[in-house]
Amino acid sequence: MVPHLVTALTGPINELEQRILESMPAIERWFRLEWMEHTPPFYSSVDVRNAGYKLAPVDTNLFPGGFNNLTPQMLPLAVQAAMAAIEKICPEAKNLLLLPEKHTRNKFYLMNLQRLVQIFGQAGLNVRLGTLDETITEPTPLDLPDGSHLTLEPLLRTKRRLGLKNFDPCTILLNNDLSAGVPAVLEGLYEQYLLPPLHAGWTIRRKTNHFHAYEEVAKKFAKLLGMDPWLINPLYTHCGEVNWQDGTGLDCVQTQVDALLAKIRRKHKEYGIAEKPFVVVKANNGTYGMGIMTVRDAKELDEVSRRTRNKMDVVKDGQTVTEVIIQEGVPTYERMHDAVAEPVVYMIDRYVVGGFYRIHADRGVDENLNTPGSSFVPLAFADSHHLPRPGDKPGASAPNRFYMYGVIGRLAMLAAAYELEATDPDAEVYE
Amino acid sequence: MVPHLVTALTGPINELEQRILESMPAIERWFRLEWMEHTPPFYSSVDVRNAGYKLAPVDTNLFPGGFNNLTPQMLPLAVQAAMAAIEKICPEAKNLLLLPEKHTRNKFYLMNLQRLVQIFGQAGLNVRLGTLDETITEPTPLDLPDGSHLTLEPLLRTKRRLGLKNFDPCTILLNNDLSAGVPAVLEGLYEQYLLPPLHAGWTIRRKTNHFHAYEEVAKKFAKLLGMDPWLINPLYTHCGEVNWQDGTGLDCVQTQVDALLAKIRRKHKEYGIAEKPFVVVKANNGTYGMGIMTVRDAKELDEVSRRTRNKMDVVKDGQTVTEVIIQEGVPTYERMHDAVAEPVVYMIDRYVVGGFYRIHADRGVDENLNTPGSSFVPLAFADSHHLPRPGDKPGASAPNRFYMYGVIGRLAMLAAAYELEATDPDAEVYE
Repeated sequence: MVPHLVTALTGPINELEQRILESMPAIERWFRLEWMEHTPPFYSSVDVRNAGYKLAPVDTNLFPGGFNNLTPQMLPLAVQAAMAAIEKICPEAKNLLLLPEKHTRNKFYLMNLQRLVQIFGQAGLNVRLGTLDETITEPTPLDLPDGSHLTLEPLLRTKRRLGLKNFDPCTILLNNDLSAGVPAVLEGLYEQYLLPPLHAGWTIRRKTNHFHAYEEVAKKFAKLLGMDPWLINPLYTHCGEVNWQDGTGLDCVQTQVDALLAKIRRKHKEYGIAEKPFVVVKANNGTYGMGIMTVRDAKELDEVSRRTRNKMDVVKDGQTVTEVIIQEGVPTYERMHDAVAEPVVYMIDRYVVGGFYRIHADRGVDENLNTPGSSFVPLAFADSHHLPRPGDKPGASAPNRFYMYGVIGRLAMLAAAYELEATDPDAEVYE
Repeated sequence: MVPHLVTALTGPINELEQRILESMPAIERWFRLEWMEHTPPFYSSVDVRNAGYKLAPVDTNLFPGGFNNLTPQMLPLAVQAAMAAIEKICPEAKNLLLLPEKHTRNKFYLMNLQRLVQIFGQAGLNVRLGTLDETITEPTPLDLPDGSHLTLEPLLRTKRRLGLKNFDPCTILLNNDLSAGVPAVLEGLYEQYLLPPLHAGWTIRRKTNHFHAYEEVAKKFAKLLGMDPWLINPLYTHCGEVNWQDGTGLDCVQTQVDALLAKIRRKHKEYGIAEKPFVVVKANNGTYGMGIMTVRDAKELDEVSRRTRNKMDVVKDGQTVTEVIIQEGVPTYERMHDAVAEPVVYMIDRYVVGGFYRIHADRGVDENLNTPGSSFVPLAFADSHHLPRPGDKPGASAPNRFYMYGVIGRLAMLAAAYELEATDPDAEVYE
């Protein structure tokens, strides 16, 4: 199916893998117990980095694109997971309204939408696409590379409900991360399920909240396995009020970068890791790989070029960076030929439904692989994460590695569940 | 994967298929609503017969063997369904005790057990095998054709719980249909989940109860689709107190066979079906294809040979036939080369997880394909039932046919849910 995959798996052998495999029943039980207390996000994707000595999530997307990159063989898993998700949320549902991003001229994104329509259609829902673009006032066909098309329809908002012409959905599924803010049309919908909730959008979401929650999850999980949480947890710190243009707050960034590098250095010494530590400075909100900088020494920040400053200053949909997260850099040592490969894990409800490698020949092991314009090559996971083979030599088998990635992906998803609970504006407070 | 499958799909085109495909969202929603009211059996397999003019379940197994006949590609679906099932029943579970049939020298059955151990192991449980065979007093290895082995362990019963040495399970999974009666060791277990429940075993179960429930399900479903329930429902009737040796009750069988054949004839006339009707006389309890007889004319019963009488008189584990069900025969017109092919659909919880064709070159379209000693060839479904293609010509595509079989399989499973509710000895009665 994906014969090259073996190449992508010649990275260093990972002790973690063996520990995770040996603990499989305990891990699965632990997840079951966590899901009794916490509600998983409706869907998610997690970028994972495998450094051999460390395996960590670096980005958790609650409005995942790229479902089209999964193999068709994995589609039934996605359909089954979607059935389970709908059953819990709105079993009587007939209709699902999908609200995509506005950049619907990107053919890859259109293929992602097509895949989502397929998944939820085959789970038994009538799926239609509504647009948050107010300039679209008529049903508008979107042509797909395979010759088929989707139709984007203008929204119809009544006092209490959102729908389309002759289409009243039980559930509204956002595939738009709300970087541009929360549109008025989505406010005050208390009769329908709006998923993910508005506070999962980048208007409100902050990476520090996510990694704070992830740290808690990683600690619990590490305790279960009797290991150092650092092996799966990227260290981080943050600075508020940074202005890259006039230099305000850059001193905070320098101090924090210094401190974090020192922390990582100590960890490397403890484990005898020869790697030179680095950190990644990112916008605390926003997504799409904008506003990301790799730093190996705080002094580098003195010489930040105007170009980089402009880059750091603007994230998607023109948001301005004011807060930054400074995160331990985790190099990715999975490779396909000479190209760097970053695994991405896809989940619907609590279930891993597949994944792929994001591969980019031109970029280094310490760079962000999801940059604008970077035409990465997706390489679908050939085997299911569901079928680990406990007897196999660690690091040698794809199914075992996929199982491990599925565990890390789910840890990040669980962190997102914690995060969304902590940031829920409508949460009831029990004293 | 299974290149011959196309051959198996050259049967007559089925109108039903198109109707079922067109109604997919309505059908899935209907199932969702039914599962809100009814609990699906833990696992099940359903033998389906496709006559082209009629598609019906003929046997619903609540202790399915043959999981080894599903393709490895379908295994992840089974694991995910098993996770969902466990989550609902016993999320805190660590251990699962599997109780197999006694005929553990059958290598195909051992492979089925191995597959079940794998599925529930990968869903995150420690799975061990206990035996109902009291002559086994020590852990006993069972060798598998692939060189691996399973261990069968003697049961350890305390006042309130059942387990093995150093193994206390939350759930006990029966893969033994209790034809030989309910062993004392399984009585009075109120602290653990015993699945399926004891009254799903053939000691208590009756085919007439199942098909009575199926009739109700088929009527509801046919109403949803606006069609004649006969298209998916095999007519049946029954006789109690039949003794094949001394002829007691044979007059009832003859009268009922006559009446049922007349009913079928009327239906055939209504639909312009040229087929000669036939009925199948089976033991009302019991399984394993014993005690089954095909009858085209009530007069045939006058000439029933001694050999057939002996066959009808004994079902599995030496039970004696006293009640019989007389069921409309549904010929199977799916073929693989010249061999008759009968689809079997496998389910875990509410999810279809795969299926295969039972193929036997030597048997006729109107005969039972699951006879003792008959070495049928399993031909796994190549595509998932989850991925129907609505645009395809009816009868022409495997995924669409598999979706349809998945629907019929689930209707029979739903009937089993109704049946088990109706026959539950511990049911609370609300007046």
